[in-house]
Amino acid sequence: MVVETTSAELLEQVVADLEAGNQEAVSQKLEEAHPAEVASLLEALPPEQRSELWEKVPTEQGAEVLTYLHEEARASIIDEMDEGELIAAAGTMAPEDLAELIDELPQDRGNMLMEALDRDHRGRLEAVLNYEEESAGRLMSTDVISVRADVTIAVVLRWLRRHERLPPHTDSLMVIDESGLYLGKLDLGEVLTSPPERLVGVMMQSDAVAVRACMNEHEVAMLFERRDLISVAVLNQDGLPLGRITIDDIVDVLREEHDRALLSSAGLSEEEDLFAPVLPSARRRGLWLGINLITIFAAAWVIGRFEEALDKIVALAVLMPVVASMGGIAGSQTLTLTIRGLALGQLSSSNARWLVLKELAVGALNSVIWAIVVAVIAGIWFDNGAIGLLIAAALTINLVFAALTGALLPLALDRMGIDPALAGSVLLTTVTDIIGFLAFLGLATLYLL
Amino acid sequence: MVVETTSAELLEQVVADLEAGNQEAVSQKLEEAHPAEVASLLEALPPEQRSELWEKVPTEQGAEVLTYLHEEARASIIDEMDEGELIAAAGTMAPEDLAELIDELPQDRGNMLMEALDRDHRGRLEAVLNYEEESAGRLMSTDVISVRADVTIAVVLRWLRRHERLPPHTDSLMVIDESGLYLGKLDLGEVLTSPPERLVGVMMQSDAVAVRACMNEHEVAMLFERRDLISVAVLNQDGLPLGRITIDDIVDVLREEHDRALLSSAGLSEEEDLFAPVLPSARRRGLWLGINLITIFAAAWVIGRFEEALDKIVALAVLMPVVASMGGIAGSQTLTLTIRGLALGQLSSSNARWLVLKELAVGALNSVIWAIVVAVIAGIWFDNGAIGLLIAAALTINLVFAALTGALLPLALDRMGIDPALAGSVLLTTVTDIIGFLAFLGLATLYLL
Repeated sequence: MVVETTSAELLEQVVADLEAGNQEAVSQKLEEAHPAEVASLLEALPPEQRSELWEKVPTEQGAEVLTYLHEEARASIIDEMDEGELIAAAGTMAPEDLAELIDELPQDRGNMLMEALDRDHRGRLEAVLNYEEESAGRLMSTDVISVRADVTIAVVLRWLRRHERLPPHTDSLMVIDESGLYLGKLDLGEVLTSPPERLVGVMMQSDAVAVRACMNEHEVAMLFERRDLISVAVLNQDGLPLGRITIDDIVDVLREEHDRALLSSAGLSEEEDLFAPVLPSARRRGLWLGINLITIFAAAWVIGRFEEALDKIVALAVLMPVVASMGGIAGSQTLTLTIRGLALGQLSSSNARWLVLKELAVGALNSVIWAIVVAVIAGIWFDNGAIGLLIAAALTINLVFAALTGALLPLALDRMGIDPALAGSVLLTTVTDIIGFLAFLGLATLYLL
Repeated sequence: MVVETTSAELLEQVVADLEAGNQEAVSQKLEEAHPAEVASLLEALPPEQRSELWEKVPTEQGAEVLTYLHEEARASIIDEMDEGELIAAAGTMAPEDLAELIDELPQDRGNMLMEALDRDHRGRLEAVLNYEEESAGRLMSTDVISVRADVTIAVVLRWLRRHERLPPHTDSLMVIDESGLYLGKLDLGEVLTSPPERLVGVMMQSDAVAVRACMNEHEVAMLFERRDLISVAVLNQDGLPLGRITIDDIVDVLREEHDRALLSSAGLSEEEDLFAPVLPSARRRGLWLGINLITIFAAAWVIGRFEEALDKIVALAVLMPVVASMGGIAGSQTLTLTIRGLALGQLSSSNARWLVLKELAVGALNSVIWAIVVAVIAGIWFDNGAIGLLIAAALTINLVFAALTGALLPLALDRMGIDPALAGSVLLTTVTDIIGFLAFLGLATLYLL
């Protein structure tokens, strides 16, 4: 089946079908689509059409669609499900997906769901819930095939043939010793190409990487990315295998990290629903506007200290946003680069000094160039050379501070355990606004009044 | 091998070893590290240490390390290699990696490299270069195992056993008919668990997805993400298989998209090197500062139209950044959400109207709430109720415009084929600055003078 429609085209077609009341066509498209695609379609629809489409999702596909939805969109759909439907869906979910769902549900519905599970299911769920959120233990699947190192490939072949099918995304088998300790992995390709009389212990990759269940999912994702892994064994502290993490879960982790990095700089949650109801949306975003209001009033207060200068020279009011804005832009470039370096694990105390020096040099060089340009424009505009000199000096000061802040602020936030992507940009513009106004209006008060 | 050091810790250790002149320890760490980890270490080092570490990378690992580096860091290292070293490294690269390298090299070095390749190598390289950049054809590997649908599993098993090893990341075999057309795929797990007498055509997945060589890599990545794929077959227009794309290449595509989305909003290139030399860094970033300078001078010009009002009421100068800044923040929230919706293929003409209406409602609601807060603060601060009313009105106008611009601007840019992540934020703040100053100072001129 060759895929030739893009997601946007599929969306367009489904909306057209929904609006034309073409039930047949909608149902057929849902049937052909992967559950993750159905989830994406649901997220792309405003509330009414979302419910309409959800009603058409076949029951047996429902649980899987739920696991692919983002938190907020999922909540909007679960709100419409009755108890029976929810329990039925939960019954078919893998424990790691169910754990995520229960974490998000309101307490009472979560408890209801836990109690409705059979003993076996609940046991496996509780095992997953024992691991910290965002740890390797939460990501892993316990559905694993392991083989002893001291058997031959022929034995492995015979034993695999007894399986109806292998767990999804099985690219390799775990190799263990007689006491169950993890030794390495044996690729399926190796099973197929090795001489049958060879021992597993000889053919296995004993340098295959494994992780501890407590490793943070970000580090696990970096490991997959760096080493081109398809799956990785998860071990406990004693070296006993607990399960394995496969690349499809890692792709989701990467997508979440991506969303978080992108959205948090605008004060949005990574679960933000494109079609969230107006009230909760407004409340969440209002909080961010409120934080910004405090910082911008702080900057306004600084301006207020220079009423006398502003009163006498109106050009200062006209030009002061230029100084603040250029600082904000230059600072955000350094900030973005530093945040990315931190996320990739490429910044540590050992090279931070280097980065700060380099960014200072870049900032200083650019400040000189643009200070001259701005000085000429401002000087000509207001026919006043002194104003030109003044704004050049203020701009230079602000760009150098911007470079320093852009590099040091995320390093400091990171060390304090605060996500620099979230708080960095609002703090940075506070600094560049205040330094910008202070430098420009302060110098004007000193030299022009 | 259990991985317990994070990338940042490894970096810390390597830097310490380099500084202590502990050559042995450095070489050992390089040997244990995956080429991609070595690449990340190189990127995290300032120029001198970078060269020092590169000299210690074993020659046989060099070519692979090069393929993992980002463009700019790679260029800094290739600059130091002589012709022979470069040719030797190129000789071991897969054609798709070599194509990327040659695209980046200066014309003369690229040509030199092409001519130095043997005929077979050059033929395969030219085949890859025939596909458009960022297309599925550029990503695929042609190292594929295919089997006929009309043979039995036993035949497949015997045939696989003749291979020394399977191509890396082989999770499935391609199934073709007698004329070579693609029919579906056969998972390795299926080969291992199916009864040997069964036909491949019966056991294969005939609904396995495949893509055309011309499909854009972003769409391919979305497909992998949505359908949890490990590999996908690439076909030509007639349905003949050309090669396959594996998940490890897709993880790189996702990382690149992530970097681009994050960095381009600050006017940075996604290839930006943390330790790029100061001059090229300053030049590139200076360009962005220059663009911003034009927009902020446009805003300053608007302020300049109201010199009379500013001259008479100094409170206007103090408060005007509040109006502009709040508009910028609110607008960037809508902008970020819309850009993400576009990237995920969740926005099309069919639901755009809904999004605009929802964002307008969110913007209007927040503008009313914060307008009241700002009015009270401003009124008390300057002991002037009229100023309070005025800033409330201006803020409302600006937040509503900000919501409209934040939603419509990326949709319009996208339709024009301009990346909204690149141009969106600078255009948005231009609008919110100008509307903010215009509304506040304009209303003041009308009602307070």
